[in-house]
Amino acid sequence: MLAEIITIGDEILIGQIVDTNSAWMAKELNAIGIKVKQITSVSDDADHIIEALEQAQKRARIILITGGLGPTKDDITKLTLAKYFNMGMRRDEGVLEDVEAIFKRNNRPMIDLNIRQADVPDGCIVLRNKNGTAPGMWFEQGPNIIVSMPGVPFEMMYLMGEEVLPKLTRSFALPFIYHKTILTANLGESFLAQEIADIEDSLPPSIKLAYLPKLGQVRLRLSTSGPDEQKLKDDVEVYVRQIVDKLKPYIVAEEDIALEEAILNIMKEKRLTLSTAESCTGGYIAHLITKHPGCSAVFAGGAVTYSYELKESVLGVQADTLNTYGAVSEQTVREMAEGAIKHFDTDYSVAVSGIAGPDGGTEDKPVGTVWIAVANREKVVSKVFNFGSKRIQNIERSASSALSMVLNLLKEDVN
Amino acid sequence: MLAEIITIGDEILIGQIVDTNSAWMAKELNAIGIKVKQITSVSDDADHIIEALEQAQKRARIILITGGLGPTKDDITKLTLAKYFNMGMRRDEGVLEDVEAIFKRNNRPMIDLNIRQADVPDGCIVLRNKNGTAPGMWFEQGPNIIVSMPGVPFEMMYLMGEEVLPKLTRSFALPFIYHKTILTANLGESFLAQEIADIEDSLPPSIKLAYLPKLGQVRLRLSTSGPDEQKLKDDVEVYVRQIVDKLKPYIVAEEDIALEEAILNIMKEKRLTLSTAESCTGGYIAHLITKHPGCSAVFAGGAVTYSYELKESVLGVQADTLNTYGAVSEQTVREMAEGAIKHFDTDYSVAVSGIAGPDGGTEDKPVGTVWIAVANREKVVSKVFNFGSKRIQNIERSASSALSMVLNLLKEDVN
Repeated sequence: MLAEIITIGDEILIGQIVDTNSAWMAKELNAIGIKVKQITSVSDDADHIIEALEQAQKRARIILITGGLGPTKDDITKLTLAKYFNMGMRRDEGVLEDVEAIFKRNNRPMIDLNIRQADVPDGCIVLRNKNGTAPGMWFEQGPNIIVSMPGVPFEMMYLMGEEVLPKLTRSFALPFIYHKTILTANLGESFLAQEIADIEDSLPPSIKLAYLPKLGQVRLRLSTSGPDEQKLKDDVEVYVRQIVDKLKPYIVAEEDIALEEAILNIMKEKRLTLSTAESCTGGYIAHLITKHPGCSAVFAGGAVTYSYELKESVLGVQADTLNTYGAVSEQTVREMAEGAIKHFDTDYSVAVSGIAGPDGGTEDKPVGTVWIAVANREKVVSKVFNFGSKRIQNIERSASSALSMVLNLLKEDVN
Repeated sequence: MLAEIITIGDEILIGQIVDTNSAWMAKELNAIGIKVKQITSVSDDADHIIEALEQAQKRARIILITGGLGPTKDDITKLTLAKYFNMGMRRDEGVLEDVEAIFKRNNRPMIDLNIRQADVPDGCIVLRNKNGTAPGMWFEQGPNIIVSMPGVPFEMMYLMGEEVLPKLTRSFALPFIYHKTILTANLGESFLAQEIADIEDSLPPSIKLAYLPKLGQVRLRLSTSGPDEQKLKDDVEVYVRQIVDKLKPYIVAEEDIALEEAILNIMKEKRLTLSTAESCTGGYIAHLITKHPGCSAVFAGGAVTYSYELKESVLGVQADTLNTYGAVSEQTVREMAEGAIKHFDTDYSVAVSGIAGPDGGTEDKPVGTVWIAVANREKVVSKVFNFGSKRIQNIERSASSALSMVLNLLKEDVN
């Protein structure tokens, strides 16, 4: 069964926002056995919305639309769909109750624009939205299903979870789609491919292998689909075992998790604790770690020390070290890592100090210079990198390299 | 002049990655006067790629394609384009040099898969890529321009910046596209719309107004285009002044910046300093602040204190307070904010302690309970929220509310 996603909004097409809805929706659709054929982003323009909808219906039976359901004039999806499906409008009492409840809860008066959120095309099935004023709308046209949802991520997620996914599951006899991901680090995709060329050549046509490189890591993904879930898993597992065997030194995890999750899993099992001491990454490493539920069993906390003073007072870096070698130096970053172990009383720590850019470089230390140290209670390992002058890239690559170094030290110790 | 973006990759359609390239490209295209009509994501499938390319060419003259240029078997864009344009392949010596240079720099041997990265369709113009092994490829078909680039963001960004955007600028006489954004906080979009209904009605058809709500903030965007840049700006400015006048109490900034940037701008001007004390947001607020160049003039640093021990040792929260009221309490979060002011010696601080979920709630304090305090050297303001059990949402909404509270305290003080 194929679906398409259409996201509506000028803000997407001028690059003012990144469309994160589609990836989330695609993952959820895959989980119930529906493949996404295409994702299309169009502007708040009636003709263009209709063109996209018509073309999508030629390729797929399920069309999920997000965006353009707000109360203001630039939002035209609802009226465009009513026109496209040749429907009149009616006021839905249930939706009106939901809208009233939201305004009551927030202690705000309701105005006409809000009341009109309860008007819906008279031939659609209303999907009530407890998280916002715009309801979801479910249309059927011949064998096809078209669903319109708000573009606000947590409203869309609520409607998908509570209404759309359960209704789709009931509407079709769906197969299983199975993706198995192997996370590797420290070897480029072409070398990985060369290592497992024989295994790749022996894959049956029903199993597809993809390579996803990102920041020093490569994800290998095996994908297949069919009616028997267990058989799919068993079939794929045969090749997973061969691949893992062949790539042993580079395997981080046999699941689609982030590097920091792999670290958390190992440390949790070994009852080890971790802290962070960040300068140029500014809390990003701590954020990556604390995004994950259950991280508190491993992660005690950390410091973001931008100023010299905090490097001294919070992490115990010597004033001498800072004055002699500067904040971006091997000496400082090692003292930061040691300070984190000592002051935060953890088994491991990771410290980063660099010049994230775009300015602030010197001849000796050009923008992009980043020192990283990882430590445990016995030793400190430090390394210098240059990640270029683009600030966000620099922060992301620093964090990724820092996490790789933690994983490597951890593997050395626990193996 | 219209462009379309086609992103290629199964990883997008199964939701394994979020396509961030398109938004970046769209913004850059707008900046040189090119509008994006549609963004389309398709799988690594030759027929589908060709269908998308044919349809895009009916709507737009410039088609930018990313993805599917890696060295492994799942990457088929290059051969698909060669077939579509009816071209043979040739080895490009310049690209081969670039590939060799990359392997030499990384001290890695080259294998046949890497060498083949230098093979290109024989009728395309090669755009050399200093950041990766896949070159960009520029095709011309009738009046249309089709460009293929790697999907790795920093490689695509390099090629866009160095090659594609300059070449597009030289190829066409492009108009100016002008977007002006006004950032507001503390009022919902329907109320904003009601307040400025008269102004909205008086807008000429050439100026489009859009409302972009997100986490308690609403961006109002006025968009227009034409040949005379100064005239566009002057025309829009008339309405900007009226809107800002009308919405004065809710205006945060007259530019498209994030809440934390508005805070940094005000604090920098007033020579004020800021620190953070985070528990459930786990470094995310510090990360939001330190993403921005020049933040070090304002931001001294902060702590991520997950454990009781670090709340005590780093921030000076009383053990008594933690034991009597718990970590997620008004008392604790106020002591965290005060501790940050004192220990990090800053003018302002913001502290967050909550239960980010999905587990860890109690009857008194359900999952999603978040206490936030903001402080300056004279006072502390604290507030409780409930942001629900979805961890990432909870972290994002906590951060956004915390930043709003900083801005409000700041505005109270500096006005």
